[in-house]
Amino acid sequence: MTNETRIWTAALIVIGDEILSGRTQDKNIAQIATWLGVQGIRLREVRVVPDVMDAIVEAVNTLRARNDYLFTTGGIGPTHDDITVDAVAQALGVDVEIHPDARKVLEDYYATRGGLNEGRLRMARVPAGANLIENRMSGAPGIRIGNVFLMAGVPHITAQMLDGLTGTLEGGLPLQSATIGCWVPESEIAELLSKTDRAFDGCQIGSYPFFREGRVGANFVIRSTDTAQLEACAAALIAGLEATGREAVAGGI
Amino acid sequence: MTNETRIWTAALIVIGDEILSGRTQDKNIAQIATWLGVQGIRLREVRVVPDVMDAIVEAVNTLRARNDYLFTTGGIGPTHDDITVDAVAQALGVDVEIHPDARKVLEDYYATRGGLNEGRLRMARVPAGANLIENRMSGAPGIRIGNVFLMAGVPHITAQMLDGLTGTLEGGLPLQSATIGCWVPESEIAELLSKTDRAFDGCQIGSYPFFREGRVGANFVIRSTDTAQLEACAAALIAGLEATGREAVAGGI
Repeated sequence: MTNETRIWTAALIVIGDEILSGRTQDKNIAQIATWLGVQGIRLREVRVVPDVMDAIVEAVNTLRARNDYLFTTGGIGPTHDDITVDAVAQALGVDVEIHPDARKVLEDYYATRGGLNEGRLRMARVPAGANLIENRMSGAPGIRIGNVFLMAGVPHITAQMLDGLTGTLEGGLPLQSATIGCWVPESEIAELLSKTDRAFDGCQIGSYPFFREGRVGANFVIRSTDTAQLEACAAALIAGLEATGREAVAGGI
Repeated sequence: MTNETRIWTAALIVIGDEILSGRTQDKNIAQIATWLGVQGIRLREVRVVPDVMDAIVEAVNTLRARNDYLFTTGGIGPTHDDITVDAVAQALGVDVEIHPDARKVLEDYYATRGGLNEGRLRMARVPAGANLIENRMSGAPGIRIGNVFLMAGVPHITAQMLDGLTGTLEGGLPLQSATIGCWVPESEIAELLSKTDRAFDGCQIGSYPFFREGRVGANFVIRSTDTAQLEACAAALIAGLEATGREAVAGGI
């Protein structure tokens, strides 16, 4: 299997009671999924778990074993409910230690902001052997250990950290997509979709209905790593939709 | 253990390639989490899985066994990528059958919309033994089988289905919350938060920092099923924050 055909996968663990209580609308799943796609890495599964040690450890161990990469968001701040570092260290069977570079970063960042204290120093704690991921936004770095990446819970801080990682992870061919929109109830052309999906190897068609301007329609998203197959599949679907007397809108509605 | 102290839990499986590709921002996690909280049921874990049979079956069997309720969203429409009914049936070891009431609902709904066809009839398929959950929005019903609830992927259709289920599921005391805001870096008062969290049994304090109007602040959310403990914990945290010379804003900032 060459690098071109191998599919690289990632999993994500979203850690935080605030997501499970409904208080906070998660934005990291979509953000990290999109970023991974550009790196040629497919997000295969996500788990949302509470701020509970055993729940995090179980998820870390299951997901890191069966994916090339594992990302976590949340729980790396200064307060008592931030236990991600401890949980990942326990899952990996390593100690927690103060990373000297992280300590230095935090000393500098807080020099004009009241100085380091016990809570702030918590943000320099890493699983032993970890490297840092730069955070230009708020001092406290992200953490990489092996194939596990610990990112912030706050989406714009995670965005910065992802930015720093761009182009550094090995991936495969990026998953490309083509969207075709049509003012048609998806249930009317289900057979066409199924037939087209089966006809093109390595293409998956997703159907996403909507109700807008008093009418029903749907966007059909074709995904493939192979540009030629993607284009052929899109052309076939457009032809099939137009054969029903409807307009097919490349790019979606 | 009485009903009042027993904690009722639920899990959620979000099914769909469109969430894992980043194309669609999930809204069902927050919506279902909030609704469950009102029913006195705690959302304990969420998994996002692709439209792949084995991935759905694995998640269904793991999560239904260790929670009182399991919800799924997505994959119950008319197209080839809608495989949730088949996956849940496989997980439960039952056949898939046409539910006569669902067929009737769909016949009526599509009577003036071109009639039933093969794709539309797919939406009457249920795991054998299932009951329907009403969908006043678009005909195709949700499905309940045992402790598993299959909801739509489109958030406003799921909202309708939840509405129909309101008050029908046994739960415990609802988890209440109190929010206290303060213009303080959370890292400055981490010790106060930790001490207060430990001092009040059954209360968990979450810390949610923000950056707004050029200043950093945080909202502290206390959660408990016990009103008296919640109020006492909130009073202690407010007193602790005000002892640092800052204003503590009940209700959050």
